[in-house]
Amino acid sequence: MNNPNEYFVVPAELHDDLVRRAYIKRGYTNEEATDASRFCHSASRHGIRTHNGLKALHLDDLFGSKVGGWIPGAEIEVLPSRFAAAEIWDGHKKLGQAVAYKAMDRCMELADKYGVGMVSVDNATHYLWGGGYVIDAAQKGYIAYTNCTSATSEVVPFGGKTPTMGTNPHSWGFPTQSAVGFPIVIDWATSTVAMGRVQQFAREGKELAPGWAVDAEGKPTTDPKKATALLPFGAHKGYGLGLVDELYAAFIGGSLPSIRGTTRGPASEKRGSTFFFQCIHPEAMRGHDYALGRTQEENLKICLADILGQGNEACILPGQIEAQSAKLTDAHGGLLFTKAEIEGFAHITDELGEPAWNIQNFRSITL
Amino acid sequence: MNNPNEYFVVPAELHDDLVRRAYIKRGYTNEEATDASRFCHSASRHGIRTHNGLKALHLDDLFGSKVGGWIPGAEIEVLPSRFAAAEIWDGHKKLGQAVAYKAMDRCMELADKYGVGMVSVDNATHYLWGGGYVIDAAQKGYIAYTNCTSATSEVVPFGGKTPTMGTNPHSWGFPTQSAVGFPIVIDWATSTVAMGRVQQFAREGKELAPGWAVDAEGKPTTDPKKATALLPFGAHKGYGLGLVDELYAAFIGGSLPSIRGTTRGPASEKRGSTFFFQCIHPEAMRGHDYALGRTQEENLKICLADILGQGNEACILPGQIEAQSAKLTDAHGGLLFTKAEIEGFAHITDELGEPAWNIQNFRSITL
Repeated sequence: MNNPNEYFVVPAELHDDLVRRAYIKRGYTNEEATDASRFCHSASRHGIRTHNGLKALHLDDLFGSKVGGWIPGAEIEVLPSRFAAAEIWDGHKKLGQAVAYKAMDRCMELADKYGVGMVSVDNATHYLWGGGYVIDAAQKGYIAYTNCTSATSEVVPFGGKTPTMGTNPHSWGFPTQSAVGFPIVIDWATSTVAMGRVQQFAREGKELAPGWAVDAEGKPTTDPKKATALLPFGAHKGYGLGLVDELYAAFIGGSLPSIRGTTRGPASEKRGSTFFFQCIHPEAMRGHDYALGRTQEENLKICLADILGQGNEACILPGQIEAQSAKLTDAHGGLLFTKAEIEGFAHITDELGEPAWNIQNFRSITL
Repeated sequence: MNNPNEYFVVPAELHDDLVRRAYIKRGYTNEEATDASRFCHSASRHGIRTHNGLKALHLDDLFGSKVGGWIPGAEIEVLPSRFAAAEIWDGHKKLGQAVAYKAMDRCMELADKYGVGMVSVDNATHYLWGGGYVIDAAQKGYIAYTNCTSATSEVVPFGGKTPTMGTNPHSWGFPTQSAVGFPIVIDWATSTVAMGRVQQFAREGKELAPGWAVDAEGKPTTDPKKATALLPFGAHKGYGLGLVDELYAAFIGGSLPSIRGTTRGPASEKRGSTFFFQCIHPEAMRGHDYALGRTQEENLKICLADILGQGNEACILPGQIEAQSAKLTDAHGGLLFTKAEIEGFAHITDELGEPAWNIQNFRSITL
């Protein structure tokens, strides 16, 4: 029987190299494959098991190179613009992780120069985990933000019955390393839960919590078998936040939300996502009047200590769990995978015509 | 007996002039008073009865010129900055409405030039209703955003028991007039409800809804008499959104969240709020590949129709209620106030040494 707390320590180079070569095998360029591998490394290191290498390559099977949805080797087209701090890119369905890293890098450069910089990406694909890009920018010292439209529409507008909106995530990252030891990362979808969770509850015969889903008539339901669409979190407030992504997409060049990821509509319709990225340089919002002569960094630290003090010591900050995972990963000197995940990598080694990883080669730890 | 659906039509000039003169009487400059009056007009026109002229002047009694919290005639100091698209202002406790209109105007100018522009304001006061500023910018064609820290801290961090965060609102406005007839405005606090609502329920002996408040031990409570602090909406997600405002404030120059609006801490501490404003020019996120040859405006219109179609026709868009109020106000040719509100203006006419408004001079309508 598997021990649910048992993990195996996989040397990062072994993992990163395997994932990179898998992407190359699928036709991606070395640069794209390196970005994809870097992303999967970051997801695993931060404990984001829903977007690790196994999941990323599985999504490429479902939506990507295997079905023509993502175009290996596509070139980003930077559109002409009269605006110095804002760029608009046509992603031409290039691999989402590669586009996202480049876009966030460009936002940092623009923020260095203008204080704030933004990149909007049309004909985008899927960037998997927005938190990965804002963590990266925050670690480099920027206040970062990204949103995107989801690959499909599973969420009803507040009061509606037909899912015409994506789960549309938002991700904010803040360079709070010197204040709390890690970047604060606020990163979530605007549905209460993911459809995968509803399906899992259906399989396990469990009742949904109120506020998760509606039935075909738009009535709230806790029966996972009757659930046909997701609800936005926080009623009209989460609905508004999901709309923000839809509005950005509509401005950039996304088409009808309800046909995203489907084959519906005329052949010449668009069914892809858009991405939006923004960075702010913290000096571009640095006042000259911090209390008691504090520096900006000192002020940040004392304000966060104030919020989590006075009886709130048990609260955690968004991004703290990811930071703890990263610390644990670093302490063990490799990426941590379960037995089932190690076995899952056999799909990838198979695809490359290589022997599967032998679990006995990896150090086992119990968390 | 009062008819709860009866309103009186007050000529806008009469209202605006009275409010303006009341601010001047309190020492504000003509420019500040004109901005304050413009703001109250906008709030009343959009049906925001919680932030009309009566409320604005009452807040000035409580926090403003009467107690030295807001400084009539204060000059905004634009701090030196090496960043072209981002400005940092010291508001020197100038009237919030005047600072907010100016800051949003400056963001529009920066967005015209750089695609995106932002203004951060330290030593800010209270801008009352963030929606008013983003509606204004959206009506002028910009994608606008503002957040601020609340005057006091009433919200516990997720899982906490002591209120160390403000109700910290966010406001987004989108120029969707040609798509849906009005700007979409997403504007709310990050607590589930306002403390005023909890107090009202306590007075009326009603039970609170779950998710509104906690008791002194941090346990969720539905007893309004036991409620000591508010909960963020949407659990950890709303907590994250409330933290965004606290983080912006900490970067800009706000001090300890838990002492805002109090007399706690050393004399040299800071207890005020900060504001953040941003505008994006829609052309700065205009792609070149809208489906079926649509323009950006056409794309926006068809995407919003898609979201609210297919059985979702009964849903409303954020900002729709405000737009309906504005239409009604315009149709009746004056600002609409209840009998109690008309009587409330007697405090203001009294302060100016003028006769109270005679309700018989105003046309009565029933909505």
